[in-house]
Amino acid sequence: MTEESVLLAHGGGGILGHDLIERVFLKHLGNPVLNALEDAALIELTDERGQMVGQPALTTDSYVVQPIFFPGGDIGKLAVCGTVNDLAMRGAQPVCMSVGFILTEGLPLSDLERVVASMAATAQFAGVRILAGDTKVLERSSGDGLFINTTGIGLVPPGVQISASAARPGDVVMVSGAVGDHGLAIMTQREGLRFDSPLRSDCAPLNLLVRVMIEACPGIHVLRDPTRGGLATTLNELAARSGVGFEIVEASVPVHEPVRAASELLGLDPLYVANEGKLVAIVEEDDADALLRAMRSHPFGREAAIIGRVVAEHPGRVVLRTLLGTRRVLDMLAGEQLPRIC
Amino acid sequence: MTEESVLLAHGGGGILGHDLIERVFLKHLGNPVLNALEDAALIELTDERGQMVGQPALTTDSYVVQPIFFPGGDIGKLAVCGTVNDLAMRGAQPVCMSVGFILTEGLPLSDLERVVASMAATAQFAGVRILAGDTKVLERSSGDGLFINTTGIGLVPPGVQISASAARPGDVVMVSGAVGDHGLAIMTQREGLRFDSPLRSDCAPLNLLVRVMIEACPGIHVLRDPTRGGLATTLNELAARSGVGFEIVEASVPVHEPVRAASELLGLDPLYVANEGKLVAIVEEDDADALLRAMRSHPFGREAAIIGRVVAEHPGRVVLRTLLGTRRVLDMLAGEQLPRIC
Repeated sequence: MTEESVLLAHGGGGILGHDLIERVFLKHLGNPVLNALEDAALIELTDERGQMVGQPALTTDSYVVQPIFFPGGDIGKLAVCGTVNDLAMRGAQPVCMSVGFILTEGLPLSDLERVVASMAATAQFAGVRILAGDTKVLERSSGDGLFINTTGIGLVPPGVQISASAARPGDVVMVSGAVGDHGLAIMTQREGLRFDSPLRSDCAPLNLLVRVMIEACPGIHVLRDPTRGGLATTLNELAARSGVGFEIVEASVPVHEPVRAASELLGLDPLYVANEGKLVAIVEEDDADALLRAMRSHPFGREAAIIGRVVAEHPGRVVLRTLLGTRRVLDMLAGEQLPRIC
Repeated sequence: MTEESVLLAHGGGGILGHDLIERVFLKHLGNPVLNALEDAALIELTDERGQMVGQPALTTDSYVVQPIFFPGGDIGKLAVCGTVNDLAMRGAQPVCMSVGFILTEGLPLSDLERVVASMAATAQFAGVRILAGDTKVLERSSGDGLFINTTGIGLVPPGVQISASAARPGDVVMVSGAVGDHGLAIMTQREGLRFDSPLRSDCAPLNLLVRVMIEACPGIHVLRDPTRGGLATTLNELAARSGVGFEIVEASVPVHEPVRAASELLGLDPLYVANEGKLVAIVEEDDADALLRAMRSHPFGREAAIIGRVVAEHPGRVVLRTLLGTRRVLDMLAGEQLPRIC
């Protein structure tokens, strides 16, 4: 018995394409809007009185992670979480999302279905509807597997003004949990390394955590998820956009023990490794305790910690007080640590 | 002097990625929203009084066309037009769009810049703003070139209710111009064929044509752009969605002479070949003349023609009166005519 796999004709717009839509995509993602198979989906951004409550926000991301299945997730879960999280980093709750698949001829249909089912489950968990989709197929010789684009629309609640440029001297810098889990999980999976404690991606949708945070502290200045380039690169971006400096205490940054061990073995710094279920939050000092309590009350923020402060000195630069007690500049990621991490 | 090309590190989220964003993407696509480099872009769907005039619509498409440059366009122009057109097929005018690039290591930066500049020019022509973006980079061994996802948001004017399921018996079926140009242009370019009259893609944004059409005839029942699978496949989709039959007169379907000649040489039927700047419109008989005049008044509808009728008989089926005077069922595309046509 041969396993069914993706054929070029699945991307041809004809009978097989329609068959794939019915058998895989609509089976798992189906809803009245998507099922109508219109060229564009009509979407609802207003409440029952026809009012749009909040400011619409838009974000897009493509996912090329390799392998497509990894401990703690898969490319489908990642694609939904990543776009939900980018919306959440403006304080927005997701409303709807589109999904574009690029498949390679020969991909087992069972793999595709597993990814699509995972997207459906993650979207349901995050409370976002998938309302538009597209599929293209590449020849076997011209790509390897499965790429996904997700583009999301959300609504920022009235009064919330979260921005990468809003950090102010005196503010407190926090992370929602331990860093490095996603990147190390992918890397050890790819290299075939084994550790006593398995490394799992932290891949998770953060919009519900962000809702709790905004309820506790509507005046949050900055949220950002430290994905590619890790915490160090994200902090550098924020310092540059806000025109401020950061003083970060390395000993305060949570890192799970297996991640630390694997990082040492592989010669990596967990501060530069991608995360897919963590966020950096920056708030006024007076709000810090309330925000930290709110974060720790949510399953995705249990290990939240204050890791440093915003300063007026050395604008655009992140200074790290190291475990050894020295001070050094923490630069942005210079080269490429690991391709296809997300 | 070696030509600069895309490196894996351009996708790493670090310094080179930021450099690419500045030097290529923001150079051509830059605007205050995009320049802010936030995780999600705040978008405006309301007028100056804070009212949303119309119903928001969402569409997504990925583009994998090979070669990326072809007579009449390139993958960038195609990506903007395709998404603008999918919105227009609901009657929507585009408001904003996101762009996701997947690049392969080794792609010349000059090619990327040419594509991005083409996107900028096409977006300006169509009146759509590009407000969110993302870039990923694949290893050379795992992909060949440049894939683009565009996801668009538009607004459907109040009262307009265009849908693939709205064709009714007695309605008139039109196309906005000659069919087969895009597919044949790609195919002959790829095969290295030469013809006396060069074949050019019809790739064009149709939202301005649609605006003129809706002004002339707000009650248009159906619009659909016959892309992958061509006119024949689109008509089959519409017949199925609307639960009606079509009677199409082959002699009435405009086909440019070079397309006809190339199709014969290649053993293709232009009715199954992809278009990227044409639409099918279905209206009540009483509106047909006014709509045809409106279409012909616009540069992208000059060769518009009535090609058939909607009937209550044989629901879901398209029947063609052929050039030879016989009648036959025009099926949906069965296999794959040509991979990576769009």
